[in-house]
Amino acid sequence: MNIETQQLQDLNAKNLSTHKSQFDFLTQTLSNSDVDVDQVIKKLADFQVAIPSWALGAGGTRFGRFSYGGEPASLEQKIEDIGLIHKLTQTAGAISLHIPWDVPEDYNAIKELAALNKIKFDAVNSNTFQDQKNQKETYKYGSLSNTSAAVREQAIAHNKEVVEIGNKLGSKSLTVWLADGASFPGQNNFQTALTHTQNSLISIYEDMPADWKMFIEYKPYEPYFYSTVIQDWGTSLMLANGCGERAYTLVDLGHHLPNTNIEQIVSILMLKGKLGGFHFNDSKYGDDDITVGSIKPYALFLIFNELVYGMQNNPQNPELGWMIDASHNLKDPLEDLIQSLEAIQEAYAKALLIDQEALRAAQENNDVTLCQEILQTAYRTDVRPLVQEARLKTGGALNPIAAYRDLGVRDALIKTRGKNTVATGL
Amino acid sequence: MNIETQQLQDLNAKNLSTHKSQFDFLTQTLSNSDVDVDQVIKKLADFQVAIPSWALGAGGTRFGRFSYGGEPASLEQKIEDIGLIHKLTQTAGAISLHIPWDVPEDYNAIKELAALNKIKFDAVNSNTFQDQKNQKETYKYGSLSNTSAAVREQAIAHNKEVVEIGNKLGSKSLTVWLADGASFPGQNNFQTALTHTQNSLISIYEDMPADWKMFIEYKPYEPYFYSTVIQDWGTSLMLANGCGERAYTLVDLGHHLPNTNIEQIVSILMLKGKLGGFHFNDSKYGDDDITVGSIKPYALFLIFNELVYGMQNNPQNPELGWMIDASHNLKDPLEDLIQSLEAIQEAYAKALLIDQEALRAAQENNDVTLCQEILQTAYRTDVRPLVQEARLKTGGALNPIAAYRDLGVRDALIKTRGKNTVATGL
Amino acid sequence: MNIETQQLQDLNAKNLSTHKSQFDFLTQTLSNSDVDVDQVIKKLADFQVAIPSWALGAGGTRFGRFSYGGEPASLEQKIEDIGLIHKLTQTAGAISLHIPWDVPEDYNAIKELAALNKIKFDAVNSNTFQDQKNQKETYKYGSLSNTSAAVREQAIAHNKEVVEIGNKLGSKSLTVWLADGASFPGQNNFQTALTHTQNSLISIYEDMPADWKMFIEYKPYEPYFYSTVIQDWGTSLMLANGCGERAYTLVDLGHHLPNTNIEQIVSILMLKGKLGGFHFNDSKYGDDDITVGSIKPYALFLIFNELVYGMQNNPQNPELGWMIDASHNLKDPLEDLIQSLEAIQEAYAKALLIDQEALRAAQENNDVTLCQEILQTAYRTDVRPLVQEARLKTGGALNPIAAYRDLGVRDALIKTRGKNTVATGL
Amino acid sequence: MNIETQQLQDLNAKNLSTHKSQFDFLTQTLSNSDVDVDQVIKKLADFQVAIPSWALGAGGTRFGRFSYGGEPASLEQKIEDIGLIHKLTQTAGAISLHIPWDVPEDYNAIKELAALNKIKFDAVNSNTFQDQKNQKETYKYGSLSNTSAAVREQAIAHNKEVVEIGNKLGSKSLTVWLADGASFPGQNNFQTALTHTQNSLISIYEDMPADWKMFIEYKPYEPYFYSTVIQDWGTSLMLANGCGERAYTLVDLGHHLPNTNIEQIVSILMLKGKLGGFHFNDSKYGDDDITVGSIKPYALFLIFNELVYGMQNNPQNPELGWMIDASHNLKDPLEDLIQSLEAIQEAYAKALLIDQEALRAAQENNDVTLCQEILQTAYRTDVRPLVQEARLKTGGALNPIAAYRDLGVRDALIKTRGKNTVATGL
Repeated sequence: MNIETQQLQDLNAKNLSTHKSQFDFLTQTLSNSDVDVDQVIKKLADFQVAIPSWALGAGGTRFGRFSYGGEPASLEQKIEDIGLIHKLTQTAGAISLHIPWDVPEDYNAIKELAALNKIKFDAVNSNTFQDQKNQKETYKYGSLSNTSAAVREQAIAHNKEVVEIGNKLGSKSLTVWLADGASFPGQNNFQTALTHTQNSLISIYEDMPADWKMFIEYKPYEPYFYSTVIQDWGTSLMLANGCGERAYTLVDLGHHLPNTNIEQIVSILMLKGKLGGFHFNDSKYGDDDITVGSIKPYALFLIFNELVYGMQNNPQNPELGWMIDASHNLKDPLEDLIQSLEAIQEAYAKALLIDQEALRAAQENNDVTLCQEILQTAYRTDVRPLVQEARLKTGGALNPIAAYRDLGVRDALIKTRGKNTVATGL
Repeated sequence: MNIETQQLQDLNAKNLSTHKSQFDFLTQTLSNSDVDVDQVIKKLADFQVAIPSWALGAGGTRFGRFSYGGEPASLEQKIEDIGLIHKLTQTAGAISLHIPWDVPEDYNAIKELAALNKIKFDAVNSNTFQDQKNQKETYKYGSLSNTSAAVREQAIAHNKEVVEIGNKLGSKSLTVWLADGASFPGQNNFQTALTHTQNSLISIYEDMPADWKMFIEYKPYEPYFYSTVIQDWGTSLMLANGCGERAYTLVDLGHHLPNTNIEQIVSILMLKGKLGGFHFNDSKYGDDDITVGSIKPYALFLIFNELVYGMQNNPQNPELGWMIDASHNLKDPLEDLIQSLEAIQEAYAKALLIDQEALRAAQENNDVTLCQEILQTAYRTDVRPLVQEARLKTGGALNPIAAYRDLGVRDALIKTRGKNTVATGL
Repeated sequence: MNIETQQLQDLNAKNLSTHKSQFDFLTQTLSNSDVDVDQVIKKLADFQVAIPSWALGAGGTRFGRFSYGGEPASLEQKIEDIGLIHKLTQTAGAISLHIPWDVPEDYNAIKELAALNKIKFDAVNSNTFQDQKNQKETYKYGSLSNTSAAVREQAIAHNKEVVEIGNKLGSKSLTVWLADGASFPGQNNFQTALTHTQNSLISIYEDMPADWKMFIEYKPYEPYFYSTVIQDWGTSLMLANGCGERAYTLVDLGHHLPNTNIEQIVSILMLKGKLGGFHFNDSKYGDDDITVGSIKPYALFLIFNELVYGMQNNPQNPELGWMIDASHNLKDPLEDLIQSLEAIQEAYAKALLIDQEALRAAQENNDVTLCQEILQTAYRTDVRPLVQEARLKTGGALNPIAAYRDLGVRDALIKTRGKNTVATGL
Repeated sequence: MNIETQQLQDLNAKNLSTHKSQFDFLTQTLSNSDVDVDQVIKKLADFQVAIPSWALGAGGTRFGRFSYGGEPASLEQKIEDIGLIHKLTQTAGAISLHIPWDVPEDYNAIKELAALNKIKFDAVNSNTFQDQKNQKETYKYGSLSNTSAAVREQAIAHNKEVVEIGNKLGSKSLTVWLADGASFPGQNNFQTALTHTQNSLISIYEDMPADWKMFIEYKPYEPYFYSTVIQDWGTSLMLANGCGERAYTLVDLGHHLPNTNIEQIVSILMLKGKLGGFHFNDSKYGDDDITVGSIKPYALFLIFNELVYGMQNNPQNPELGWMIDASHNLKDPLEDLIQSLEAIQEAYAKALLIDQEALRAAQENNDVTLCQEILQTAYRTDVRPLVQEARLKTGGALNPIAAYRDLGVRDALIKTRGKNTVATGL
């Protein structure tokens, strides 16, 4: 399945005049408020989010899984899927691989295929939360934190191998999501587990190429139900500091206790120069990994406010790695990802409209009413014309979901791949 | 302090052409989607929210309170304050009294003052969670649920008196927020407490005039810290059913455990014809009572979606009583209320834009992607021009916060009332 | 694998004198406080908890599953496993089947096997949250609440078939856990979904034999992530009332939002005569289904306080169906269940020690300090000698976990069944 | 009011033989499990918890306050109250002052009074979350983090003064609970607020005597409702590290988001040598500050397990400052504190019974069932005889609550102080 540029242009043509009038009207309004619309469009156009390979198939829960027809059965097909999304949205120009689900057989062929689809290789992800066939030691009781040196060595070796694979593809960072933890009080010695983890991470860190970064995720619970070794950003930062300069904390939106002020965490990590990456999703209860912006779009906007602020004011922080870590089984996974990308672009656009100077002045004056007015003025703006304009400029679809359906993408995928394929991974 | 119509017209004049062009542009866009804009404007103009008398002064926390200059020191001044808000927003045409904080001395004078300000008397609120001076029995261990018959009788009598006062003013409903509960396991016998409460409510209910309604609030915790007699909507509904046809459940946004799906509660209560009233506020953690829409505006929109649906499809449910139950000490209370009113109107306007027919069809087809698109299409629309147009039509301010500041309302109030007044109540 | 009575007696003999001295000492202490120890022992001995067939294999999470050797591969082996637990604890005299995982091939043989193991058939459970092979309609978008009549009919028919199967085995109740819900705002029409559910339940209810009861579970979220049709006890009770007298609410400990006061729900439902059953487990975060009493044993005790109170004071409520709904993959499932049974017996024993008369008097006097003292006096008592004595009297093991290990049960099961069996079900 | 030693001995005499037989029986049982009972008794006897001066009067909520007769109206009376509690429990040998509520007029007199009551001066607490009369700058919008240098200077000066006062009394540590935060998104610039806070703390830190320690509290929300500058342990640790070696994190049990694994935080901070103090209380919902052990006694035990482990294995961590930060308005405050002290001693005693060697071995073997058995064996033990023996040895009451009531303490206090006194502070 391939989407031709001409196909998109034809589809866009139908709505072009409507778009233009809306964009022009909005541009005029924003210009009156001294917004540099061109600059906003440019930032939106430049913004690229990695798609993880495991988000392309239908997800499931512990109670079961309802599969979706035409799921990608190989790394090649996953790249093809992301290529389709990127073609439509011009925002998904990277893939994040998960090893061992995505080990390439022919590196050059994979690199060429990715290049053809204008897809870069973002952070690579290791997996020590599942046992693979023929694996010698089990991760049932942990991996990098395990009480057994043999298990830790195996997990370290796996991470090193992941770096090696990523390095061959042009990736420049390793994401470690360490699921290790305990489901019962007393099961783990917290201090031993953390010390083992620190030592294991140092061993991996020191083996990475000199231009690589390590991203350390945190999560309060699940898959373990009582404690997680890296339970919060404080622990992650402690471990990153213990590794070295190129180790960073990675924030995943879903990995927080109820009501956590995530935007504050983002802001403080950027102040310290230690925010490495960001995983997008949304949730109402636990780590539900549902479509970005489907539950709490205002919270996403507040986070983007801090991200934009940090990108403008915190040179001590590196460029961030962005990824969608969402997937759900009730929607077509590609439609789900397109909706997530739109929600991200929308939140980013709105954050770019915030009058930072006025906000700073209102904060200095403790004019709380005005602070809120300033944020909400940006948030209430309908920024769809801006996001559409950015897509238009870069060759994407004005309305990606509509285009995806008009072009019959899913049917075409089912025709080629079959109705009962199951994507590797979660 | 009084705001003259001419003053508002002069202020509006400055932004009128901008507003008109935005409103016209939006009207055209919406009309293309078959939205009946006139109808939306009419509904917005008709929508009135009661202001509780206790929200006009600065609130506090258990750690202290920072007062605000020019707070209203009497019922007359409270009505004057609401009159100001109503003049600006044309959405605050009612006051909700709290007895014993607001007992009128001269009923006719109060009624005339309210009429002058175009303020109606909404539901009256009883207070059995504090002891008043010279009160015989204490509510320390509960009121309508107390183990002592004497305490229960006193609390019942108080509620009856509140109805009497409200009746003299033209009010037609009583709101019972029963704070009774326990702070420690074992303190209360749950069954006894509930049975006492049911009997007390029946006694009050049977004493109400035949055209009155009773609204029964629920809340999971606070001011008691282990259990509340009416802890959730299920208990409230049980009690309402035990009283009779004119007893209803009242939903206060802040009175829920973390992550509760409130819109579903609203919807089911309307299906059963048992939703009586709705209290607006917002919060991130507990029952924080902060400005409506300041934290979770999308959740508010989803709730309004159900309210609009119910108003259109559930004739078995009575007209709802609306009230803002928010107040905070860091903003000028009147500005805070204006922001709340704007957030309510915005959510209502967006909910009115939802294409209900298309949504129903998408639901029938299990097209989950499309369901989300339909909701978000409405939500992403910038409805400020609609809300402004409704205000313009009814004689309010295009930009109420700006007008409030331009007119120097707070300074004028401080000049008249002094800097260190403290509003009665919370 | 079979445990002989003589084997247990031999094991018990080693610790008998220690037990006797502890039991005697405790009996004397309790008798001084007017506790009827014989009565307590009798109640503990009579108390039987059903084991669900799916708890006998290792559970998993959405991130994977680590299997346990010797898992039961058939209904026969599941009954054998429960027989072993029951032999050791004398508290697990019932099995709760899950259809279609446990459809018997030869009903008489199964009934004989159960009788041989002194196992009764408790409530049967239907499953409409997964699709089975060759199933005509999919439950992906719901079952009893589905917008499609065909899907609802299929789900109703399945429930009726489950009743039929249970009836042949001597079961007297059906548990409906309806997973139906939505993962995204807008996906479902709440009112339609509830109305469909009510009608579907009525159809099942009316088809049940006249001596059967229906238990309706509720749960706030999972497997769906935005809303569940039966989200709380209020909805469950509404549906039960809509079905008829023999329909009841079932409370599962894990199916509540954070901080819910579950003991109050239990108490109120018993007051109304509408608590049908109770599912035990424990959790720290979500519905984690971990070992009973492993996280919040005091909360369990408080719940048992209400259950004991209700059993003594609420004749309007039927006898309750008890079941453990826990399972986890890090422990031997049978050890896990034994620990759960011990925690349940411990909580029950402590609740039986509460001086109800003194508590009632302290409540009447609002002596909050004393209320707490009374509860904690019972809770702080080491009741292990009572639980052990009850087991001893009924022929169980003094120390079931130790006996299980001494007898090498798991090894024997692995030897017979193999190391890589996977139990059917979750 | 004074309690004579002879009075206690007389009261104890009545229950002495019962106690002795229970203590002997338990000692024998524990000795069979190789527990060094003498050592446990010694540790319990040595354990002293500070009482904060504000916990001696009835607390309230934002909805009101019900006062308690005989509340202490002066610092002298507060010391007298703690003296009474200490006399009864022998566990409350310290007071924690709150400035400006407790500024001594005559330092020598206060020191003598404290010495007479065997009360030491624990950490002193500053207060920058309320405005005091005649205060020049307001803390309404923050103190150490305020955007205004003048406000920050005032708050810094206050803290320095608190240290000076504490120093005169023999205190050796300052506890900073910084309430600063924001109630609305946008109100604060997170980075600026944190940077100001760090600088303010450094200024205070550098001014402290060389043998003083600084304890930095954290809290996720309240009194502000959107963000708190020091929202979690990660932020507190960051600030402590920024100050220097004698700055530490202080953990208050109630200052966490729902479900936080607090014992893990305690353990990791001790591993890093950075846990300075610990505040005890309990809660079911928010920061409810209710009696220790009244809601989650098992969680308290798990925390004590880590504290005991750290005290035995982490020489890098200093001796901890212990304080009860609880108070509630429904109980006699002194009874409430006595119940808290008993709960603390009970949890400590149980943690001391854990077989650490066996636990470590089970952890190494991943024997999760056994890990749980080991913890629960300790927890299920009725340790009241141990706690009583420790009190007996040190001259306290066998049953402090009973003694308090038998001696008519509250009546005596009311007689002396009056029925309507109101304690200074919260």
